[in-house]
Amino acid sequence: MKKHFTFLFLLLVAISFAQIQKVEPAFWWHGMKNPDLQILVYGKDISKYQVELSDNIKIKDLTKTENPNYVFITVNTDEVQKSSFKINFKNGKKTVDSYTYELKNRKPGSADRNSFSSKDVMYLIMPDRFANGDPSNDSQPNLTEKANRNLPSGRHGGDLRGIINNLDYLQNLGVTALWLTPANEDNEKNTSYHGYAQTDLYKIDGRYGTNEEYLELSRDLQKRGMMLIQDYVTNHWGISHWLIQDLPTKDWIHQFKDGEGKYGFKRSNYRTTSQFDTNVSEIDKQEALNGWFDTTMPDLNQSNPLVLKYLTQNAIWWIEYAELGGLRVDTYPYNDKVAMAKWAKAITDEYPKFNIVGEAWMYNPAHISYWQKDSKISAIENYNSYLPSVMDFTLFSDLPNALKEEESWDKGMIKIYNSFGNDFLYPDINNILVFFENHDTERFNEIFKGDVRYYKMAMSLIATVRGIPQIYYGSEIGMQGDKNKGGDADIRRDFPGGWKGDSQNAFNPETQTLEQKEFHDYTQKLLNWRKGKEVIHTGKTKHYMPKEKVYVYFRYNDNDKVMVIINNNEKEQTFNLDRFAESLNGVSKGKDVISGKEFSISPQNKIRISGKSSLILDLQ
Amino acid sequence: MKKHFTFLFLLLVAISFAQIQKVEPAFWWHGMKNPDLQILVYGKDISKYQVELSDNIKIKDLTKTENPNYVFITVNTDEVQKSSFKINFKNGKKTVDSYTYELKNRKPGSADRNSFSSKDVMYLIMPDRFANGDPSNDSQPNLTEKANRNLPSGRHGGDLRGIINNLDYLQNLGVTALWLTPANEDNEKNTSYHGYAQTDLYKIDGRYGTNEEYLELSRDLQKRGMMLIQDYVTNHWGISHWLIQDLPTKDWIHQFKDGEGKYGFKRSNYRTTSQFDTNVSEIDKQEALNGWFDTTMPDLNQSNPLVLKYLTQNAIWWIEYAELGGLRVDTYPYNDKVAMAKWAKAITDEYPKFNIVGEAWMYNPAHISYWQKDSKISAIENYNSYLPSVMDFTLFSDLPNALKEEESWDKGMIKIYNSFGNDFLYPDINNILVFFENHDTERFNEIFKGDVRYYKMAMSLIATVRGIPQIYYGSEIGMQGDKNKGGDADIRRDFPGGWKGDSQNAFNPETQTLEQKEFHDYTQKLLNWRKGKEVIHTGKTKHYMPKEKVYVYFRYNDNDKVMVIINNNEKEQTFNLDRFAESLNGVSKGKDVISGKEFSISPQNKIRISGKSSLILDLQ
Repeated sequence: MKKHFTFLFLLLVAISFAQIQKVEPAFWWHGMKNPDLQILVYGKDISKYQVELSDNIKIKDLTKTENPNYVFITVNTDEVQKSSFKINFKNGKKTVDSYTYELKNRKPGSADRNSFSSKDVMYLIMPDRFANGDPSNDSQPNLTEKANRNLPSGRHGGDLRGIINNLDYLQNLGVTALWLTPANEDNEKNTSYHGYAQTDLYKIDGRYGTNEEYLELSRDLQKRGMMLIQDYVTNHWGISHWLIQDLPTKDWIHQFKDGEGKYGFKRSNYRTTSQFDTNVSEIDKQEALNGWFDTTMPDLNQSNPLVLKYLTQNAIWWIEYAELGGLRVDTYPYNDKVAMAKWAKAITDEYPKFNIVGEAWMYNPAHISYWQKDSKISAIENYNSYLPSVMDFTLFSDLPNALKEEESWDKGMIKIYNSFGNDFLYPDINNILVFFENHDTERFNEIFKGDVRYYKMAMSLIATVRGIPQIYYGSEIGMQGDKNKGGDADIRRDFPGGWKGDSQNAFNPETQTLEQKEFHDYTQKLLNWRKGKEVIHTGKTKHYMPKEKVYVYFRYNDNDKVMVIINNNEKEQTFNLDRFAESLNGVSKGKDVISGKEFSISPQNKIRISGKSSLILDLQ
Repeated sequence: MKKHFTFLFLLLVAISFAQIQKVEPAFWWHGMKNPDLQILVYGKDISKYQVELSDNIKIKDLTKTENPNYVFITVNTDEVQKSSFKINFKNGKKTVDSYTYELKNRKPGSADRNSFSSKDVMYLIMPDRFANGDPSNDSQPNLTEKANRNLPSGRHGGDLRGIINNLDYLQNLGVTALWLTPANEDNEKNTSYHGYAQTDLYKIDGRYGTNEEYLELSRDLQKRGMMLIQDYVTNHWGISHWLIQDLPTKDWIHQFKDGEGKYGFKRSNYRTTSQFDTNVSEIDKQEALNGWFDTTMPDLNQSNPLVLKYLTQNAIWWIEYAELGGLRVDTYPYNDKVAMAKWAKAITDEYPKFNIVGEAWMYNPAHISYWQKDSKISAIENYNSYLPSVMDFTLFSDLPNALKEEESWDKGMIKIYNSFGNDFLYPDINNILVFFENHDTERFNEIFKGDVRYYKMAMSLIATVRGIPQIYYGSEIGMQGDKNKGGDADIRRDFPGGWKGDSQNAFNPETQTLEQKEFHDYTQKLLNWRKGKEVIHTGKTKHYMPKEKVYVYFRYNDNDKVMVIINNNEKEQTFNLDRFAESLNGVSKGKDVISGKEFSISPQNKIRISGKSSLILDLQ
C-alpha cells in the first residue's frame, strides 16, 4: 500500500506542475515545400505525458531526450486541413495541457521571393547604435542590461523605430539592402548590444522593438524596392538562453572537460583552416570547431539533428514571417560543415532564389571559395556547402594596404590587381560581398585619418567591381573608429543625429557638416548611378596592371562599358590611353559619373587625373 | 637566251653553296612509342632541293618555312628496317648533299625507366661552381668566355669530371639525385656560367666536358643507385644560339615592336598570374608570357608546332641518350601553357614513370597546384598541365620567416603549420619538391649567419615532411651567400676543395673544419636514415598546432611511425605528451635518429627538448 501512495503522490505532483512553458516555432505556415514540421514543446516533465493531435492528425515522429522537460513532435503539415490544430498532452484519458497550433497562409510569391544580388548595395547597421526612434523601449523590466549611453560598450537605445524613421535617408543614399547585426533578444548582463549572444531565437529584443515592428521595417523597405537581411548565428547562442539553461540533450552544445573533471567552456583556437586541412589532428580540429567563440557563447552542436532542425526551422520562420530578403551567417567556418550544408540546402530548397552570405573570414581566395556553393575547391574534398555567397576578405585586407604602403613588386596597387586575379577560383564571382570594413574591423576612415580622398578611391572601387558592395553605417559621413580602443565600442559609435538632443544631425543633408557632406554626396551620387548600371551588376571585368600607382579597369557587356581609373599618387597623372586599346575599341568619349563632365576617350587620347582620386567614366 | 643564262648562273651559285650544316637531332632510336621523328636540316638554301630518303622510305611530312635554309622532314621510324638511312638532297637527278641518319637501339627497359620520387633526395649543383676535375677544358677556342676565377660572375672552371670525381662524397652524404643547372653550351659573352642562355641544345658546353662525359656521369650515378636530372629550359634560348641568329620563322621567338618600328626585345613583366586571371588584358598577358626573361634570352614561341616539336624531341633525346632520371623545367609558367601540356604529355607518354618538376615560382598553394598534373584547380579552367611535379615555394618562403620572426596570430611557427594545411589542394602531394633555398635565392645559412641550429631545424623539416627534399650544394657544409651582393654570384660560390690549390677541402671529411663537419655530419646521418624510411617517403602526416614555438608532427603508415618535434625557443622546453594521444596510441618508446638515444614515449610521458633544436624519433 505504501508503494501505491508514493506513486500517487508523485503523480499528483507531476500533474500539478504540468504546463506548457514554450512551443517553438509558435506557429507555422501551410504549403511549405517541406511539409514536415518539428514542434518543440517545453514544460516541466512534459515528456511523461502522451501526446495527441486533434482532427486525427498523425504524429509523424515523437522524439524525447534525456531531459524530461522536452518533446519534439513532427507533423506533416500537408495533412492538416484547417488553419489550426490542437496538441494535447494527456495523462491516461485526462488532458493535462493543450496548445492550439496555428498554420497561417503564406504570402503569395513567398517561395519565389527575390533576394539580394550584385544589383544591390548592402548597408550594415548595428541597431543599438544607429538611431533611437522610441526612447520608451530603451530599458525593459525583464531584460537585465539597461540603457546607458555613457558606457561605450553599453546599450545606447538605438532601435527598429530609429531605422524606420530614417528610411528616406537610406533610400536617398542609394543603398538597397539593410543588414542588421542580430536583433533577437540578447539578455546577457553586459555588452549585450552586439546581439551575438542571443537568448531567444524567436523574439526581437525588447529594447529594439517588437516582432511586429521588425516586420514593419521589412515591409517599409519592400515598398521602397529595398529589403531586409537578417544576421543569423548558427554557431552559438548566449549562455543565458533558456534552452542552454536547461539543455534538451547534453550534446546540444559542445562541452569540454576541465582540469577538475567538469564539462563546459573551452575557448576555440579559431584556426578554421582545420576544416580542410588533411593533416589536422582531431584534438586541434575539435578545439577549433567545438571550442566556444567566447565565454558567454556556448558552441552549438549542429551535427545533432534536433539542433540542426531547430536552426533550420528558425531561419525559415524568420524569412517567412519577416519577409526577409536574405541572411548573413555569422562565424561560418566554425560550424559543423556537413550540417551547415544541409541547413543552407533546406533554406534554398524552400526559397530557390534566396541568397545567404557566410562570414568565412579567411584571406586566401582558395579558402574563401571553398565555402561558396558548387566550389571546385571544396569539390576536391567532395564537399558542397550550398552557401550561395561569401565575403571578399582578400580585397578587404589588401585594399587599405594597397593605398597606404610603399610600392614594390608585391606591395601597393598591385595588391588590388592581384586580388582580382583569383576570380577564377570562385564558382559565382558576382555573388561575393565587397567591402572595406564592417562592425568587426578598424574603420576605413580611421586608417586614413578622415582623408576623404582615400574614402572616395575605396568607395569607387567597391561600387564598380564585381560583387555586392557592402558599406558600414556612418562611413558615408566619414565616421571614424579605432578597434584597439576599448574593445570594439569605438568602431560602433552612435550615428550623429540618431538621438534626441544630439548636438548634430547627420541624417539631414542640411545639417551635415561640410566634411560629412563631402563623404555623403559622393557616396549618394555613386550608389544611385550604380542602381541602373547592369554592366556593373553583371558585366565582365578587364583590368590592367597598375603602372605608376594608377590602376585601370573596365566593366563591359554587349551594350555598355565603364572605365575606372584609380590614381594613388599624391600628384596629378597624365598618360596615354593607347595601352587600353583592346578595351577602347570603338569608344569616343567618356562621361565622369560624378561631375557629369565629358572627356574625349580613345586609344589616341591622353587623360589627366588628379592626385589621390578616382575617375569613373561611362563610355560611349 | 639571256634568261636561260641567268637561270643557269643562279643554279650554279646555289649548287656551289649547297651543304648540310646541321642535322638535329643528329641521330635517333628505333622502337620509340611515338615513331614519328621530325628531322631539322639546316644549310644554305637547302629548301630549294628535292629531298629523298634511301630504301624507299616515305617522307611523312616535309615542312619548309620562309627561311630557305631549313627543311623539316618527318619520318615514320617504324618503317625503317635498318640501323640507318640516307637523306639525299637532289637537284633534278643530281644528289647535291647527303646525310646518313642513324637509328640506334634503345637500352633495354628505357621506356619503363624509374625516375625521381619522394624516396629521393635531390642535390642541386651549378657545374661551374662545384669542382674543376679537368683544368684542360676551362677555356675553349670556340667559346667566347674564358675561365677567370677572379670574376664572381665569370667562368670558374667547374666541370662534369669534377662531379664524377666527387660521387663518393655525394653518395655518402645520402643524396640520390643530382640536378645540375643547364650543362648545354652557353656561348654568351658574359655571365655564361649559369647556362640559362643556351646556344646549342644538343651539346654539353665544352668547358664542362663532352656529351660522352655527361653520359658517364649518369651511368656512374646509376651504378650507385643514384640518378641524373637535367635542367630543361623551354622558355628561352641564348640570343647567340645559331637558330636564333638565322630564325627558321619570324615567329620562332616572340618579338615586340619598339618605338622605331623595329621588332625584338621587350622585357617580361614577370606577372605569370596572368596565366589564370580571367580578368587579364591581352596586352599584359602577352607581355608576361611573350616578353623576354632577359635581354640575352629571346622568348621561344612554344605555340609554333615546329618549336614545340624541337623542344619535345630534344628533351626525349637527352633522356634516351644520357639515361636521365628526371627533368627540372625552368621558368615554367612563362611558357605557352597549352603547348607545355603537350610537351609534358609527349615525354610522359614515352616514359610513363618519368618525373618532371616545373619551377612555378608562386607562393599561393592554389597557384602552385594549378601546374601539377590532374590539378583540380586548373580543371576549373579545363586545363591539365600533365606536369607531374611542382615546387613548394610556399614552404620555401615561410620557413625562414617562421624561424626568425616574432610569434603572433599569423607569424612564427604557425606559418609552417599553415603551409601544410593546404596539402588538400594538390593532386599528388608526395610529388612536390621541398627546399629552403636554391641557386636563385638567398642562402639559408646567410639568413641565419651560419647558425647551425637553424640549419638543423630546417633540414630536419624538409627531410621528414611529405615530398622530395631538395638541397643546394654547399649548404651541407654551412656555405653562405648573399643574393643582394654582386648579382647572384655570391650565392654561387665555389665549393671549397673543388679546385687544385684550394686552401681547404670540404669534400674530405678529414679536412673539413669543425663547423663544416657539424653541418655535414648532421645532414649525412639524417639523409642516410631517410633512405630506408618508407613512412617518410609515402606515409601520411598528422600535425599539431604549434604551442609555445614548438611544432610537432607525425608521419605514419600501417607499419611505422615517426615523431618530429621542432623547438624554436632559445630555451629548452619540457611538455606533456598527452596532447598527442591520438598519434601515440600504442607507442612506448622513441629513438632519436641522430643520437640513437631512446626515450619513453607515451601520452603519459613528458619530453624535454633543447632550445633551437629538432628531435626526430623513430617510434615503437
